[in-house]
Amino acid sequence: MFTSSDNNKKLFLGIDGGGSKCKAIVMNENNEILGTGVSGPGNPLHGFEQATNSITESALLALKDAGLAHIELSELIAGVGLAGVNLPVLFEQMQAWQHPFKQMFLATDLLIACLGAHQGSDGAVMISGTGSCGFASIDEQYYMLGAHGFPHGDKGSGAWFGLQAAKQVLLAIDGIVAPTIMTEVLLKKLGCHNDTELVETIAGKAATYYAQLANLVFDAAEQGDKVALEIVAEGAEYINSIALALIAKKPPRISMIGGLTIRLKPWLSKDIQQQLSEPLSPPEVGSVLFARKEAAKIQPVS
Amino acid sequence: MFTSSDNNKKLFLGIDGGGSKCKAIVMNENNEILGTGVSGPGNPLHGFEQATNSITESALLALKDAGLAHIELSELIAGVGLAGVNLPVLFEQMQAWQHPFKQMFLATDLLIACLGAHQGSDGAVMISGTGSCGFASIDEQYYMLGAHGFPHGDKGSGAWFGLQAAKQVLLAIDGIVAPTIMTEVLLKKLGCHNDTELVETIAGKAATYYAQLANLVFDAAEQGDKVALEIVAEGAEYINSIALALIAKKPPRISMIGGLTIRLKPWLSKDIQQQLSEPLSPPEVGSVLFARKEAAKIQPVS
Repeated sequence: MFTSSDNNKKLFLGIDGGGSKCKAIVMNENNEILGTGVSGPGNPLHGFEQATNSITESALLALKDAGLAHIELSELIAGVGLAGVNLPVLFEQMQAWQHPFKQMFLATDLLIACLGAHQGSDGAVMISGTGSCGFASIDEQYYMLGAHGFPHGDKGSGAWFGLQAAKQVLLAIDGIVAPTIMTEVLLKKLGCHNDTELVETIAGKAATYYAQLANLVFDAAEQGDKVALEIVAEGAEYINSIALALIAKKPPRISMIGGLTIRLKPWLSKDIQQQLSEPLSPPEVGSVLFARKEAAKIQPVS
Repeated sequence: MFTSSDNNKKLFLGIDGGGSKCKAIVMNENNEILGTGVSGPGNPLHGFEQATNSITESALLALKDAGLAHIELSELIAGVGLAGVNLPVLFEQMQAWQHPFKQMFLATDLLIACLGAHQGSDGAVMISGTGSCGFASIDEQYYMLGAHGFPHGDKGSGAWFGLQAAKQVLLAIDGIVAPTIMTEVLLKKLGCHNDTELVETIAGKAATYYAQLANLVFDAAEQGDKVALEIVAEGAEYINSIALALIAKKPPRISMIGGLTIRLKPWLSKDIQQQLSEPLSPPEVGSVLFARKEAAKIQPVS
């Protein structure tokens, strides 16, 4: 068991902060996972306060889960991977955070996801969760596609699928398009009976809200729903395009990750599916690998 | 000139409160326009305070414009047409407003637009401005299509055209689609040089922001830009569908109104263009016609 007196031993914290939740992992120097924690949204695009609170909360939960509640956050070397910090303004804001850790190394959610998927080695990832994007890390060069946010970007993401479904249901209620399986299922899921109730329910909702509707699009598509099939085909086509652009960079490995992977992957082109490798570790492990790499640059690990 | 002692004469205020501005008109009993005023956003969906402030401010400006600054708001019979109040929760909120007028009659922006376009008679309107919708008033029966809001609805509206353009430009910068005329024009208009700057600029922006990008889509389409032509065709197809659904209700007249009319009308099907009549009066006049009708129900005009 770790104690505060284990001065020679290092403890690492890995954070994966996304639009809907923030995951934390505590690892030792042997890359063994000691504990995990999950809290609320960790994307600073939706608020600096919420993001930093979520990071701290998930870290404390991970320590508790590891049986290390007596360890202070100030003893942890933290790798913090966050959605949103691909925007320079948010990167600078988070970098300026008076964080509670021993050291903090900040990275985009994309980099830590890629590092996790390929156990710290070069590779590429397509991500479809609440948002969508492509990322490759090859010879210390980063290459990024998408990750533009909602509703102007993030095609093929959970939020995008959910929004497409809501749009089609509103058109169907108006009689502009024929109603399909999705119409009734979506209304029922949201407890709405007509377009007015639906509009009141979804008005002003963020990406995470729409993302919870993505599964019903795939359910309907699997039942042969024509409108759902069109949405799925359009979303899959975009992820195919992302994959082709990444493959053109010749990464040693390429993986698909994110909460929508299990639903979306079977709809990608067979050729692309065959080139995909299973991700080796989750993004929060990538955060630790990133922190170790960066910490070593400052003070080489003995 | 009107004075406070003209007890036998009635003064009417007509309000047209939309997502980007609030228009006011002061009319006398002979339906003569005495003055007009314009203030900020009047859609209570974006805030009750702002909407009610905009209404009051535009009313005071209209009185001043009429040379009637000495007249109190409490002497005006107000017809208030507002975007957003098709949602029951917002209608009730606005109805409960401790308004400064003698009487206030609240209606949707759609009803007052339709009454204005057809000088208080039965008819139908397709509206494409910041938002989009269709509305018909026939034999005291109302029929509505669209008006669902942004980004889940309002296809064929200024906001929708602007968002489609931003989406395509982001895809073009990523190399997923070929860049077109629009790519450079949109970046230049927003003062951006790359996708990161563009995303920072447009992140979280509301419908009114996107609506200002609509004209460049039509400019590009008129220059033969393929991507712009596809966007315009898709938007026009939706407005065509709205028109056909309204025409099926056999309105005596049908008009197209809203800020995008001049750009979008030429792209509608020829058959529909031929059936359109010019609107007779603007929506704020429709608000006065509505107020007079409603006031007469309570206390018949002598």
